[in-house]
Amino acid sequence: MPELRKDPVSGRWVIISIERGKRPSDFGMRVSPKKGGFCAFCEGNERTTPPEIMASRPNDSKENTPGWTLRVVSNKFPALNIEGELNREGDGMFDKMNGVGAHEVIIECPDHNLTLSTMPLESVEGALRAFQSRIKDLKNDKRLKYVLVFKNEGDDAGASLEHTHSQLIALPIVPHLVQEEIVNAKQYYNYKERCIFCDIIRQETASKKRVISENDEFIALAPFAPRSPFETIIYPKRHESSYMLNDNAGHLAQMLQQTLKQMDKVLDMPPYNMMFHTSPFKDEINDYYHWHIEIMPKLTKIAGFEWGSGFYINPTPPEEAAEFMRAAEI
Amino acid sequence: MPELRKDPVSGRWVIISIERGKRPSDFGMRVSPKKGGFCAFCEGNERTTPPEIMASRPNDSKENTPGWTLRVVSNKFPALNIEGELNREGDGMFDKMNGVGAHEVIIECPDHNLTLSTMPLESVEGALRAFQSRIKDLKNDKRLKYVLVFKNEGDDAGASLEHTHSQLIALPIVPHLVQEEIVNAKQYYNYKERCIFCDIIRQETASKKRVISENDEFIALAPFAPRSPFETIIYPKRHESSYMLNDNAGHLAQMLQQTLKQMDKVLDMPPYNMMFHTSPFKDEINDYYHWHIEIMPKLTKIAGFEWGSGFYINPTPPEEAAEFMRAAEI
Repeated sequence: MPELRKDPVSGRWVIISIERGKRPSDFGMRVSPKKGGFCAFCEGNERTTPPEIMASRPNDSKENTPGWTLRVVSNKFPALNIEGELNREGDGMFDKMNGVGAHEVIIECPDHNLTLSTMPLESVEGALRAFQSRIKDLKNDKRLKYVLVFKNEGDDAGASLEHTHSQLIALPIVPHLVQEEIVNAKQYYNYKERCIFCDIIRQETASKKRVISENDEFIALAPFAPRSPFETIIYPKRHESSYMLNDNAGHLAQMLQQTLKQMDKVLDMPPYNMMFHTSPFKDEINDYYHWHIEIMPKLTKIAGFEWGSGFYINPTPPEEAAEFMRAAEI
Repeated sequence: MPELRKDPVSGRWVIISIERGKRPSDFGMRVSPKKGGFCAFCEGNERTTPPEIMASRPNDSKENTPGWTLRVVSNKFPALNIEGELNREGDGMFDKMNGVGAHEVIIECPDHNLTLSTMPLESVEGALRAFQSRIKDLKNDKRLKYVLVFKNEGDDAGASLEHTHSQLIALPIVPHLVQEEIVNAKQYYNYKERCIFCDIIRQETASKKRVISENDEFIALAPFAPRSPFETIIYPKRHESSYMLNDNAGHLAQMLQQTLKQMDKVLDMPPYNMMFHTSPFKDEINDYYHWHIEIMPKLTKIAGFEWGSGFYINPTPPEEAAEFMRAAEI
């Protein structure tokens, strides 16, 4: 019997379609080998990207030259523009505003062939600190309300360049999905006077069924109602409403890289999307929201049912996914 | 300057990224030729599908034998099961229920090589009537609250079989996206005492910018804030809350097939998803909701930004899409 499960934070239902029960090998080989060729993100090609916004240069090399371990540049084809007035405007019954915002690229590592799961741990840690540093800077722009940090790894997950990189888009509005989580988390808090995420972590830690791993500061879980097979969420174990409050980049880098290594092992280097969810600027410190990282390997297709309903059909129960992830020898 | 636009019905924002401005040819050839081979949906292979639930047999041939023009069968790998109790249950703080529902396949035409845009118009009309007939039957099952009719055409849009077919999934809950539309439409109605969809149709008809085509009963629009390039919505021009109230299958078939022919012409037979949105069973006749068909060609990838925000980046302004569609010689 398939099961309908509701995600308590987003309110979204998913169908865990046990009859279709898929094991990792059923998803097939997804790895497409890197083609190489000219790459604007490789060391030596610094002049072919927009000028760098920040960089880590251990030997104090000059900006936009080789010698860096991490670079942040503007996206060459930005979805939003940093210049301009944030005019809100009506068009009869429709609402629009200028596409003011920022769109930046974080190149975590100069080596074309590495990924977040294979690069040196200090590069992962450096990237995590760079995200915070960029968000801190963008927060000074009063037009902006939220910064979404995300990563597309692999062509099937929407990466247009094969050299691994993360992105951030700073927005003049709070994203729909974050807002939805906030509304539900607030409602829960008003009723229970507890953070819904803290309660989830407590219940999952007790039952262990969906725990993938933990260290002193973080826990990786397969959520109760995952949108896709092997979806994984990393939470700080202690209540923390915003990523900006976190100063455990070392522990987080370890947990993040370990999770991605497990995923690579179990699913044979799948394409994936990674998204940071945190409290919006205007209410960064609060008792009801709990920042986290969502990681979704791209294994299934979004089709008419999902587009029409907003529900998802997931052929792999999260309890099984967690078991495979825990058993991965990395 | 890119533009942020809000869909008044769903409340969802999209980024119309004009700098990335994509013309139809930029999306590349998407058509993958049919491979043929054994097909369970072809005439003569009726015994290889689950037994038929309904069929159109102009010469009164026997069920599950050749001689049909349309067949409805259960999905061989159903996402939900029709048997069983609809138990709602808590698991600590989580909610779940048995996956009770129906999952059926509507084979609109026995010919393997036709699609909704190329099959005889009477086959399209027959399919539209079959959807209503199946929904009417499923409505008798008091466990069910909504039937989502949808179609995945082409591998990239999630079709697992190349012989064209539609599907329906009957659900014990109202889909998230439909519920969201209902909540917003109700709010608008409470404030304005008018249907939000009727108002959209009125404004679009006056401005003409996003009108693709119309006949006596229906209108096809490029929505103001489309999730993807060339997204198209077909509405009945007169207020009608539920698809079940419609008795203009002829006009609808004409409008639907014409829209798909235009899309095939402009985008070179793109893969697409089609979804019906209608009022749920328990409130089928009302003044605030207006049923419609959403058609989304699959031209862009859903990646980290979309998964993390619930917003979409659309490189083709709907005004341009509508212009291309209107100009298509079909």
